[in-house]
Amino acid sequence: MEVFAVPGLPEVRAGDDIAALIEAQADLQDGDVVCVASTIVSKAEGRAFDLSAFEPSHRARSIARRLEGITGDRKDPRFAQAVLAESEELLMEAPFLLTVTQFGHITVNAGIDRSNVPDGDLLLLPDDPAASARAIRESLSADVAVVVTDTSGRPFRHGQRAVALGWDGMAANRDWRGERDRDGRELGVTVQSVVDELAGAANLVTGEGAGGTPVAVVRDWSFGDHDGHDLLFRDPETDFVRQALRQWSY
Amino acid sequence: MEVFAVPGLPEVRAGDDIAALIEAQADLQDGDVVCVASTIVSKAEGRAFDLSAFEPSHRARSIARRLEGITGDRKDPRFAQAVLAESEELLMEAPFLLTVTQFGHITVNAGIDRSNVPDGDLLLLPDDPAASARAIRESLSADVAVVVTDTSGRPFRHGQRAVALGWDGMAANRDWRGERDRDGRELGVTVQSVVDELAGAANLVTGEGAGGTPVAVVRDWSFGDHDGHDLLFRDPETDFVRQALRQWSY
Ligand SMILES: Nc1nc2c(ncn2[C@@H]2O[C@H](COP(=O)(O)OP(=O)(O)O)[C@@H](O)[C@H]2O)c(=O)[nH]1
Ligand SMILES: Nc1nc2c(ncn2[C@@H]2O[C@H](COP(=O)(O)OP(=O)(O)O)[C@@H](O)[C@H]2O)c(=O)[nH]1
Ligand SMILES: [Mn+2]
Ligand SMILES: [Mn+2]
Ligand SMILES: [Mn+2]
Ligand SMILES: [Mn+2]
Repeated sequence: MEVFAVPGLPEVRAGDDIAALIEAQADLQDGDVVCVASTIVSKAEGRAFDLSAFEPSHRARSIARRLEGITGDRKDPRFAQAVLAESEELLMEAPFLLTVTQFGHITVNAGIDRSNVPDGDLLLLPDDPAASARAIRESLSADVAVVVTDTSGRPFRHGQRAVALGWDGMAANRDWRGERDRDGRELGVTVQSVVDELAGAANLVTGEGAGGTPVAVVRDWSFGDHDGHDLLFRDPETDFVRQALRQWSY
Repeated sequence: MEVFAVPGLPEVRAGDDIAALIEAQADLQDGDVVCVASTIVSKAEGRAFDLSAFEPSHRARSIARRLEGITGDRKDPRFAQAVLAESEELLMEAPFLLTVTQFGHITVNAGIDRSNVPDGDLLLLPDDPAASARAIRESLSADVAVVVTDTSGRPFRHGQRAVALGWDGMAANRDWRGERDRDGRELGVTVQSVVDELAGAANLVTGEGAGGTPVAVVRDWSFGDHDGHDLLFRDPETDFVRQALRQWSY
């Protein structure tokens, strides 16, 4: 398979048609997987806001005060308010805000970015990244899959890597259940989250900085002859780490 | 960048020289990243064992009994013993064994595999995957980086994806600290775990099944002009999820 960044994309603004911007710069082929950094999806969808758009609640003020005390850094209660507004649940309030976004993704600060954002102080994640992926895919003329990605930290392992937030035109996971290993045994590892592996592959060529390459194309990769299924965010009932965090406090 | 599986590798046996097997099948080039599934590293290093090699302790018996009660499946106390022996710490005893391996990787059952293993009932992870990566790299004639990978689950997100266990010839992470975004601001995301993203990219072409492709080469990718650093397993002092799990019980 081949992975390449789409060159020459402009600064994306609210209202821009991402599919059209991509097609102006890349000859997509049927079967490609087009990975789009959520940053530009958010920009196109008008998700940049000034901090002043967020009137801090009592809770946001108390969270910001507590984080200020712990970290020694100034924390804007309006930022805490933005995080609360974007979150379905707070799993950790300290020493940082670990949140479940409205669409089910668990990440720090509800994935709100302050870098690569000229038009406002804050860039919120897309409201519904699966719908964003579908809209981009439906506007593209080639028959591709689309993955909307974000860079995010994770438990246990230092650093960040890209993951999928939303996808369309493919299943999130290869389901190996029922398939056999080299010795005819049924497979132990049953579900491979290829959509996250694609997001990671794309991020190797897009990067985190000023590169100006928010879109990467994966070509000549195929999902293969496997069952697919689409559960990517764990069911809270069987997410024991989430349950442990609910009971824990810093 | 290009990612391809090395074709035609044989069944790997204890004592095999993985570097020689790879070079017999692939023309490696300077700058390639060679990703090797831990399965074959373990096989070459003689890490396949029969269950009978593990004499269950009192603790292993009680863990197996408890898991049997919870899951309704038969649990072999010798398997629990193997997991205990491979682990520095148990973070969860139920409803499954979440472990910290001796080399610091957090995964279920200490990463012990029961699939793709003909020579024994169990395949343990390599003892020291960083040393394994170094040994393979030093035996290869091209100037490459080597990543030893494994498929592993993760909190919050359903399914498994590949991660790096050990690596040599490159840093684990691109450190973006001090670099600037498109608008001149210092970057918020500071550390990109490229070695995990490379492992994920490789796994897209190696797969989990009977494919017989445990090695993938990433070509024409470059780490780039970034600082690098090598912390991949979080420091326990700042791994709050680990701390929450220590206090939690099922
Ligand atoms: N051309 C272009 N590139 C952008 C824009 N915004 C961000 N980027 C680039 O997209 C890539 C990913 O940016 P990042 O902020 O890490 O996105 P995220 O991972 O979705 O939060 C980097 O190469 C940025 O330089 C934009 O509006 N236009
Ligand atoms: N040629 C060859 N392929 C193997 C061998 N063992 C495993 N594989 C293949 O390697 C790939 C990865 O296997 P898997 O069990 O998922 O490895 P893990 O992710 O390191 O646990 C699959 O394509 C397997 O079929 C072997 O001894 N020889
Ligand atoms: Mn982001
Ligand atoms: Mn990013
Ligand atoms: Mn494995
Ligand atoms: Mn695997």
